[in-house]
Amino acid sequence: MAWLDQTGVQWSTDPQVLAEKRLDRSGWEPDGSPAAVVFPRTVADVQAVLKGAQETRTKIVARGAGTALTGATAAGDGVLVLDLSGLNRILDVRPADGVAVVEPGVITANLDRAAAAHGLRYAPDPASLELSTIGGNIATNAGGLRCAKYGVTRDAVLGLDVVLAGGERISTGRATLKGVAGYDLTGLFVGSEGTLGVIVGATLRLRPLPEPTATIAAYYPDVETAAAASVALAEARIQPVLAELLDQATLDAIDPGLRATGSALLIVQTDGGPDEAAHAAEVLAKGATLVQSAGDPAELLKARRQALPSIEKLGRPLIEDIAVPRSRLAEAVRRIGVIAARHDVPICTLAHAGDGNLHPIIVAGAHGEPIPDAATRAADEIFALALELGGTVTGEHGVGVLKRAWLAKEIGPLAHDLQRQIKAVFDPLGILNPGKAI
Amino acid sequence: MAWLDQTGVQWSTDPQVLAEKRLDRSGWEPDGSPAAVVFPRTVADVQAVLKGAQETRTKIVARGAGTALTGATAAGDGVLVLDLSGLNRILDVRPADGVAVVEPGVITANLDRAAAAHGLRYAPDPASLELSTIGGNIATNAGGLRCAKYGVTRDAVLGLDVVLAGGERISTGRATLKGVAGYDLTGLFVGSEGTLGVIVGATLRLRPLPEPTATIAAYYPDVETAAAASVALAEARIQPVLAELLDQATLDAIDPGLRATGSALLIVQTDGGPDEAAHAAEVLAKGATLVQSAGDPAELLKARRQALPSIEKLGRPLIEDIAVPRSRLAEAVRRIGVIAARHDVPICTLAHAGDGNLHPIIVAGAHGEPIPDAATRAADEIFALALELGGTVTGEHGVGVLKRAWLAKEIGPLAHDLQRQIKAVFDPLGILNPGKAI
Ligand SMILES: Cc1cc2nc3c(=O)[nH]c(=O)nc-3n(C[C@H](O)[C@H](O)[C@H](O)COP(=O)(O)OP(=O)(O)OC[C@H]3O[C@@H](n4cnc5c(N)ncnc54)[C@H](O)[C@@H]3O)c2cc1C
Ligand SMILES: Cc1cc2nc3c(=O)[nH]c(=O)nc-3n(C[C@H](O)[C@H](O)[C@H](O)COP(=O)(O)OP(=O)(O)OC[C@H]3O[C@@H](n4cnc5c(N)ncnc54)[C@H](O)[C@@H]3O)c2cc1C
Repeated sequence: MAWLDQTGVQWSTDPQVLAEKRLDRSGWEPDGSPAAVVFPRTVADVQAVLKGAQETRTKIVARGAGTALTGATAAGDGVLVLDLSGLNRILDVRPADGVAVVEPGVITANLDRAAAAHGLRYAPDPASLELSTIGGNIATNAGGLRCAKYGVTRDAVLGLDVVLAGGERISTGRATLKGVAGYDLTGLFVGSEGTLGVIVGATLRLRPLPEPTATIAAYYPDVETAAAASVALAEARIQPVLAELLDQATLDAIDPGLRATGSALLIVQTDGGPDEAAHAAEVLAKGATLVQSAGDPAELLKARRQALPSIEKLGRPLIEDIAVPRSRLAEAVRRIGVIAARHDVPICTLAHAGDGNLHPIIVAGAHGEPIPDAATRAADEIFALALELGGTVTGEHGVGVLKRAWLAKEIGPLAHDLQRQIKAVFDPLGILNPGKAI
Repeated sequence: MAWLDQTGVQWSTDPQVLAEKRLDRSGWEPDGSPAAVVFPRTVADVQAVLKGAQETRTKIVARGAGTALTGATAAGDGVLVLDLSGLNRILDVRPADGVAVVEPGVITANLDRAAAAHGLRYAPDPASLELSTIGGNIATNAGGLRCAKYGVTRDAVLGLDVVLAGGERISTGRATLKGVAGYDLTGLFVGSEGTLGVIVGATLRLRPLPEPTATIAAYYPDVETAAAASVALAEARIQPVLAELLDQATLDAIDPGLRATGSALLIVQTDGGPDEAAHAAEVLAKGATLVQSAGDPAELLKARRQALPSIEKLGRPLIEDIAVPRSRLAEAVRRIGVIAARHDVPICTLAHAGDGNLHPIIVAGAHGEPIPDAATRAADEIFALALELGGTVTGEHGVGVLKRAWLAKEIGPLAHDLQRQIKAVFDPLGILNPGKAI
C-alpha cells in the first residue's frame, strides 16, 4: 500500500488498528486481515484514495461505525479499509427548507440533536443511532422504531454526493423536497452496502418535531391477539410512531415473572395528541390482559430496551431480520416458535409490528464458542418461512455476506443478473466491497 | 407489423386510432405517426408483444392515459404504441397489510375509491387523477397536492412486476412495508418514463384515511409574505396536507377583482384535528390581508380549481414544473415575473408551496398557433433560474422530450453517462421509448 503515501492521506498498518477495523457487529469473520486502514478528512482525500485504488486494483471496504449485522463491513485479506468517521461535519441545517447537509461520518443521533435545536428532527432512528453513521445508515437503508410512521432512511435522503470507483465525484438527486429528473441514482446508492460508490455527502430531509408521544404497553394472552390489536390500530386509522411486539420467549428472557401478566407484549407510541392516544388505548384494550398507559414512557419502554441485554445473558445472539405482510405477523411468530422447538435452540422474537418487520434473535450457544449447526439450520428455516409468507429475508439490516444465497432465492435469477450488470456499470473492476450484497 | 398477428393480441392501424394515441397532453408533436397500436389484456400479451418487438427491432411506446405534459408519451414514425389501459383490474385490496395489488391501467382515482371502502386511501393525487393510470403515475413518479405531507408516487410503491425489453418478466421490491434485499430496482423503474421496461403490476401502500381536513384561504399583499407564511407553518410544526400558492398573475386571470383583496393567495389544508387547524389559521394570519377559514372547503379551493381553466382562456398554456428549496420560493416567483415582463409573455405561477414545487404557466400565444419564440426563451430562462436557485427543472412531470437538454445540464455529464449505461443494461437494443427521458 506504499502508493497511499502519494495521496497524502493518513493511513495505518498498525495491527491493533487493523484488528479494530476488520469486523462488523455480525460476528462474521473474513479470511485474513485488511492490509491497511486509511483516514480521509476531505472529499478530495476520498477521491485520491479511490483513484489510487483503481490504478492498483486495490479492494476497498468503506466503513462508518462498523455496526452492520450482516458482515457487510467485514474486511479480509489485502483489503483497504476506507474509514469515513473523520468526515463528520454537519455542514448546514436549513429549517426553512426542511433539509440538512452532512458529511457521511456524522453520528446519526448527533444530526437528530442538531435538528432538534431548530424544532426539527431526523426521523430514521436505528437502535444503533448513538454509534452508527449517516453514511452507514444510507448504505444499508437503515430502518428504526419510528419508521412505521416516518419512513426508513430512503425516505429521508434527497440527494447524495458520491465518489465513484475511479475517483470521480457525482451528485445525485437534489436539494429540493421533490424532483424527477432522470433515473433515481440516489435510490440506487441507498442500500447498496458500499458496492457502487462511496457516499461523501448527503442532503437529508428533516421533519417538524411532533407533539410529545403517548406510550401504551398492552399484554395479551397470545401473540395472535397482540398482532390482531396492532392491525386493529391501522383499521382505526391510528398511525403509531412505533408498535413493538415482544413474544413469550423474549418476555421470559427479561423476567419469567411476566408470564403471569401475559405471553405477548405490544408497546405502542402515538404522537397525534391526547384524543389519538385515548383512542389507541381503547383499541389496544380489546383482548388484553393488562393495559398500562399512565406514567413515564421510559418506564413502559423498559421491557423493549431490556430485551437484547437479557437475551445476551442466555448466550450469543444472532439477530435476524425478516419482514412479512402485516397480516402474517402472528403466523410468523408462531412458526418461528415451532422452528426453535424442532432444533432445540432458543429464539426470542421482537417485531416492529407496524410494518411487519421481525427480529428473531437466535441464541446460538455460548459467547465465543462456534455457532452450532442447529442455529444455522434454524436461521435458514426462518428465511424460507419469510419467503413462504410472501415476505423478504431482510427488512432493514441488508444482505452483507450472510444473506447472499438467500438474496438470489428472493429476487430470482433475472433480477439478480440485472443487479450484477448495474454493479458492473459503476464498478467495472469490482474493487468496491467485493463479495458483498449482491 | 404483420408479426403482431402471431402474438394473438388485438391491434389496429386505423388512422383514427393512430391519431388518438400519437400525442400526450404536452402539445409536442413527433415526426410522423405510429405504425400501430396494440391492446394487451394480460401480462402474457405484453410479454408476447415485447418478445416480437425485440426480434423485429420495433420501437415501443408504453401508454397509459396519455396525460403526460412532457412529450414522454408521444409516438412518431414507425413506433408501436402499447396501450395498457385494458389491464385495468384492481386485483386485491388488503386492509390488514395496508397494501393494494393492481394492474397498470387502473385509473388513479378508482384505486383511491376502492381503498376508501376500507377506510384507507391511495395518497398520491396528481390533478389528473380521474384520467391518469397508475402505470403512468409510476413511470413518471407523479406528485400531487397532498404529497407535501403524504409523499409522491415513489413513496407508495412497494413492488413492481415488469416486463423487460426481451419479454421476460421480473418482480422487484416486495409485498411487505419494509425490505432492503439488493439494489432498489423498484426505485429505478419509478420515474423511468417507459424507457427501462413495461410495468404490468404494482403492489402499492395504502394509508389510513385521515380526519376530515380543515381548509384555510389567506390573501397577502405580496408573494414574499405568502411564502413566509408557508415557511412559518413548518416552523410551527404544522404539516399541511396541501399548501397551494397562487401569484398575482394567476389571481388576475381568475378575477381581476381579487386584486383588491391581495396579490398572493395561499390555500392550506390540514388533517390533524381542530387544534392544528386553529393553530394553522393563527400562523397564516400574520401579514395577511384576509383569512377565510370557515365554510365549505370546496368553496375555498375554488380559486385553485379555476386557475387552469381561467389561464386557458388567455391562450395556449405551457405548464412548466420546476422545484426550488422552499426558502427560495418567493424569489423564484418574483423572478419569473421579471422573465415574463422581459419577454412580454404572460406567466401565471401556481406553486405547491409545501415542497417548493412551482408550476409557471406560460401563455404561449393563441390556441392552435405555433408557439412564439419568446415563450420558448422564457421557458429556458425559468429552467436556468431553477438551477441557479439550487433546484431542479422538473419537480413532478418528468423529462420526456421537452427537457432532455436541461437534464444533462442539471445532473452533469458523469451522472448522465451512468444513466445511459443503466438504460443499456435494461434495453440494449434501445427499443423502449427511444429518445425520451435521458
Ligand atoms: C445494537 C445494534 C442495533 C441496531 N439496530 C438497527 C436498527 O434498528 N435498524 C437497522 O436498520 N439497523 C440496525 N443495526 C444495524 C446497523 O447499525 C445499521 O445497519 C447501521 O446503519 C450501520 O451504520 P454504520 O455506520 O455502523 O455502518 P457500517 O457497519 O460501517 O457499514 C455498513 C455498510 O455500509 C457501507 N458504508 C458505510 N459507510 C459508507 C459510505 N460512506 N459510503 C458507502 N458505503 C458505506 C459499508 O461498506 C457496509 O457495507 C443495529 C446494529 C447494532 C449493533
Ligand atoms: C390536467 C392535468 C393535470 C396534471 N396534474 C399533474 C400533477 O398534479 N402531478 C403530476 O405529477 N403530473 C400531473 N400531470 C401529468 C400527468 O398526468 C402525469 O404525469 C400522469 O402520471 C401520467 O399518467 P398517464 O397514465 O396519463 O401516463 P402516460 O401519459 O400515458 O405516460 C406517461 C409516461 O409513462 C410511460 N408509461 C405509461 N404507462 C406505463 C407502463 N405501464 N409501463 C411503463 N411505462 C409506462 C409512458 O411511456 C410515458 O413515458 C397532469 C396532467 C394533466 C393533463
